[in-house]
Amino acid sequence: MSTASAIEGLKEALRHLPGVGPKSAQRMAFHLLARDRDGARALAEALRAALDKVRHCRRCNDFSEDDLCPLCASARRDRSLLCVVESSADLASIEQSGAYNGLYFVLMGRLSPLDGIGPEELGLQRLEALLGEGEVKEVILATNATAEGEATAHYIGELARARGVRATRIAYGVSVGGELEYTDRGTLARALSGRRDV
Amino acid sequence: MSTASAIEGLKEALRHLPGVGPKSAQRMAFHLLARDRDGARALAEALRAALDKVRHCRRCNDFSEDDLCPLCASARRDRSLLCVVESSADLASIEQSGAYNGLYFVLMGRLSPLDGIGPEELGLQRLEALLGEGEVKEVILATNATAEGEATAHYIGELARARGVRATRIAYGVSVGGELEYTDRGTLARALSGRRDV
Repeated sequence: MSTASAIEGLKEALRHLPGVGPKSAQRMAFHLLARDRDGARALAEALRAALDKVRHCRRCNDFSEDDLCPLCASARRDRSLLCVVESSADLASIEQSGAYNGLYFVLMGRLSPLDGIGPEELGLQRLEALLGEGEVKEVILATNATAEGEATAHYIGELARARGVRATRIAYGVSVGGELEYTDRGTLARALSGRRDV
Repeated sequence: MSTASAIEGLKEALRHLPGVGPKSAQRMAFHLLARDRDGARALAEALRAALDKVRHCRRCNDFSEDDLCPLCASARRDRSLLCVVESSADLASIEQSGAYNGLYFVLMGRLSPLDGIGPEELGLQRLEALLGEGEVKEVILATNATAEGEATAHYIGELARARGVRATRIAYGVSVGGELEYTDRGTLARALSGRRDV
């Protein structure tokens, strides 16, 4: 192998990207160095900028450059509805469905005791505080239809009911075992309109 | 969408990576920001380091941190053999086959008139100069078995013969239309041993 250590370092670092194995990492490293050095420079800068600027919204926990994200700051959203999702990607999918006008709470994960992710790691005390403010009338549980997503929905449903807040679960239009992020708009819209009490 | 502009910038920059579309880029950006900020930092640094340090070997044109790459600087390699490959990944595959002990010339591409890649863009004048030094007795053409790879092999074969250097082509153990980078070691070893005059 004639590849030098800075290349090896780059290949290794590229493996931090989800779904990138050794062969893909090598392909990416060679592509950037041989054919797209400007792209590599742009990527390095974009990573730095995102690390510097992107924080979490203090209300919904979604990524945000401001203290309060544009959605939470908007006067046009229905503040009595709170949709709980696992990830920012899930939030984006629901927004694209056009079927929802409330606000969100982004867990940035799911309850997973085996991985050491409990209520505290998910910031559920912040969700509890939000529910305690009295503005939210309904919590829509839109976690994935996986075992962990279901357990998370169940746990948050109990939290909401303990505070007298209605808790609903999106309907099983979403394919069981599948991921919300990759569900088509129509299915997501049906899942939202078909939600039921838990 | 609540995603902020630094995130959009990161998603866009990630698309410079080969094989990464909008969905993958989003997944990568969210993963790095939510779960692997250290990884994102490491990737930004590795990109900078590679851009700063990685140049091309002045003899074989492969990536190198030094003026001369370790292979070209080695006293153990047979300097009468020169294997011409399209990419650094192809070179790595041939090295892994263990069937070759000569030196290389890395084109970092292939002749592709439609994309404006001619002999000059591939640095073939440097290859000509190398062949003119008289040390190389045989040029092994190991470009991919695609139309462009074949045309490139043909062109370089003519160059070599014009200088009285034997030109050989690796055997068609490599699957036609396939890519050299993903060929298994055994097939590559057979392709090297079964090379024939062109």
